[in-house]
Amino acid sequence: MENRVSVGLLGFGTVGSGVAAIVQQHQQDLLHKLGAEVSIDKVLVKDLTKDRDTGLSPDVFTTELADIVNDPSIDIIVEVMGGIEEAKQAIEQALQAGKQVVTANKDVMAQYGHELLQLADAQKQDLFYEASVAGGIPIIRTLEDGLASDRISNLMGIVNGTTNFILTKMKQENMSYEDALAQATALGFAEADPTADVGGLDAARKMVILSSLAYSTEVSLDDVVVRGMDEIQEGDVELAARFGYTVKMVGASQTDEDGIEVVSEPVFLPDAHPLASVNNEFNAVYIRGAAVGETMLYGPGAGSLPTATSVVADVIAACRNILLEVKGKRQHAPQHARPIKPANKQQAKYFHRLLVNDEIGVLTNVTAVYSKHGASLQSVMQHPSEQDGQAELILVTHRISRQQHLDIITDLDGLAGMISHYRIAGEE
Amino acid sequence: MENRVSVGLLGFGTVGSGVAAIVQQHQQDLLHKLGAEVSIDKVLVKDLTKDRDTGLSPDVFTTELADIVNDPSIDIIVEVMGGIEEAKQAIEQALQAGKQVVTANKDVMAQYGHELLQLADAQKQDLFYEASVAGGIPIIRTLEDGLASDRISNLMGIVNGTTNFILTKMKQENMSYEDALAQATALGFAEADPTADVGGLDAARKMVILSSLAYSTEVSLDDVVVRGMDEIQEGDVELAARFGYTVKMVGASQTDEDGIEVVSEPVFLPDAHPLASVNNEFNAVYIRGAAVGETMLYGPGAGSLPTATSVVADVIAACRNILLEVKGKRQHAPQHARPIKPANKQQAKYFHRLLVNDEIGVLTNVTAVYSKHGASLQSVMQHPSEQDGQAELILVTHRISRQQHLDIITDLDGLAGMISHYRIAGEE
Repeated sequence: MENRVSVGLLGFGTVGSGVAAIVQQHQQDLLHKLGAEVSIDKVLVKDLTKDRDTGLSPDVFTTELADIVNDPSIDIIVEVMGGIEEAKQAIEQALQAGKQVVTANKDVMAQYGHELLQLADAQKQDLFYEASVAGGIPIIRTLEDGLASDRISNLMGIVNGTTNFILTKMKQENMSYEDALAQATALGFAEADPTADVGGLDAARKMVILSSLAYSTEVSLDDVVVRGMDEIQEGDVELAARFGYTVKMVGASQTDEDGIEVVSEPVFLPDAHPLASVNNEFNAVYIRGAAVGETMLYGPGAGSLPTATSVVADVIAACRNILLEVKGKRQHAPQHARPIKPANKQQAKYFHRLLVNDEIGVLTNVTAVYSKHGASLQSVMQHPSEQDGQAELILVTHRISRQQHLDIITDLDGLAGMISHYRIAGEE
Repeated sequence: MENRVSVGLLGFGTVGSGVAAIVQQHQQDLLHKLGAEVSIDKVLVKDLTKDRDTGLSPDVFTTELADIVNDPSIDIIVEVMGGIEEAKQAIEQALQAGKQVVTANKDVMAQYGHELLQLADAQKQDLFYEASVAGGIPIIRTLEDGLASDRISNLMGIVNGTTNFILTKMKQENMSYEDALAQATALGFAEADPTADVGGLDAARKMVILSSLAYSTEVSLDDVVVRGMDEIQEGDVELAARFGYTVKMVGASQTDEDGIEVVSEPVFLPDAHPLASVNNEFNAVYIRGAAVGETMLYGPGAGSLPTATSVVADVIAACRNILLEVKGKRQHAPQHARPIKPANKQQAKYFHRLLVNDEIGVLTNVTAVYSKHGASLQSVMQHPSEQDGQAELILVTHRISRQQHLDIITDLDGLAGMISHYRIAGEE
């Protein structure tokens, strides 16, 4: 074991084949860095007969998970098989068998992360999951180590490449949502079924993982307020630009003494905000810490080699733990129980786009609703609607709570149609 | 030692007092994270009588370095005293005395980094220097760990907050260089003597540190081509904007099979490049890796608490090494000897701004010089100069080597006056 670390790979798809390629190409660098050879000795696949272009010996492939997790010569298990239940069980078995485990599985970590990290602690093993969020961006490591000395108060991320690609095309090329989605699919950025992406669920899962780590507590998917791209109406993207904003799908969380709020939703970002210029399929995570202030990490959120880079960085960390004999010395499970507070208390400016009858007194009646709920207005704009006899009213509030915002929407019913509404993020 | 790690602080200025504040405020978090108390037990200062607002006991302060490095109860020495020779000697003594060492000293690391890292290796100690480059941005850690599995080919950084602040004001508020510098000084972003900042030397030092690490080799300050802000002429910033570029002072390095090139200079960046929208005093480092593609880290490049965040992250890493008994297990000194190649071979587009006599045939004669040196032109623009009988010629070349660019400048002598010239970066 001193001069050789043995890796078992579960899955050989996009990420798995990237991991194998990097480990093989960088064999000399790894030997230099670790003083040990890293060798992929077993690979779990579904079909042994499939033709694979790999530098690996054919006899490393197996269809039996047990062949790998029960092999005492395997030191590290890399789970890149995807799926949820089966992958979770594989990680459990690997930890129980005394392996260091690396996973790139966001779905498993969002749903079972706390349980699995606790199991890792109990087994005195480590569970690494850098690649589960934002592909090639070392965000997990930065939250764990780089900002270890700080207290993080806000996270905001563009963590879904598909929706960011679509919004970029809509803004920069005036593309329709449908055309942009079709192009994302053609380029391989969007899944065959993009529901989880465009519905905000994918970003919500990533925020569960990041927020749990950043605040060292247990956040679950049920805690996240999720709004999808279907909330974005025709004309919103241009309208945002006229007011100096960019529409972005973000995952955001913040913490204060009352607890934690986590949302995944389309927001308006000021054009000058660092996240506003993150375009196409790129991801970025913006972090605010008490001491460090604001930092942002930017990079590729997906793709075979970028994601594999993060997996192999984790493999290297696991190798170090094995070679230095310090496996399982860091506590992975969350340390604090912090209340999740309803996102309704969060304060922000809101952007409301209303359709009203173009009649005398309508503006008075509408603005009276805002006054009633204690919301003062920063700007108001009226312009003719494409529909006869109607007008569009744009109202930007000063800072109000999400609850005030929701109450206003309820009270406007009958008086005006709410075309769309956005929280204005990043102006804290 | 099991439950207590003892820190000696060399210096109690801006960064040192920030370190003390973070360690004291986060005492409970540190205890949680490490299972041990972190205690600042000795602080080296010049003047014991100075009034200091600190939560530390007055008897921790001393004016004698030996009191700290020779104290066997001190585990970690944090060098935040600044200066070069004295600080270098202090780090040497600390390593020789068997301490883990953390430094925030860019000047020492740029000049003596290789020597000190070798000494750390020889002494089986670790020398951490996250805070020496780009204050609160965890760039050293990202190059060491997050991208450990990748081969880095390019680094480009806005690593000097003073010059970036000045250029932002010049672009966004049409401020003159002098006014912007005065404001930077008033706000505390610029040193009393800003020569090293505006001359590009500060960024060059940081690129020496980053490039040595990224390519695991020995780069020295003499290897860096340095051009300062004095190369930026009046009107250049607006002119750049008209062509879709932003003028930025960057440090940049790249490597290929022939060797490494390192420069610190003003460049034109396409407005869409992630670095182009890094504004004010913020820093960012853009990294290109063979596998990961492009990533960028953004954040505060200086300031007491941001820089102290990085120092304390290093202290935490040092504590872990002590508690896990794995001090000095990582090799810090560079592993490869790579040739430094003259920056003249680097290929890029160039932007030339010339002053010519407004006469028949001048454009023919000027463009003939470019043809002679094998440089084809991407765009040419002529407009009247403010000086009678003269015109300004703007020429943007296709990709040429820096040598071709320099030869063209030489040959234009007599025919045209070169007002200013820029490499167009970030279009690789």
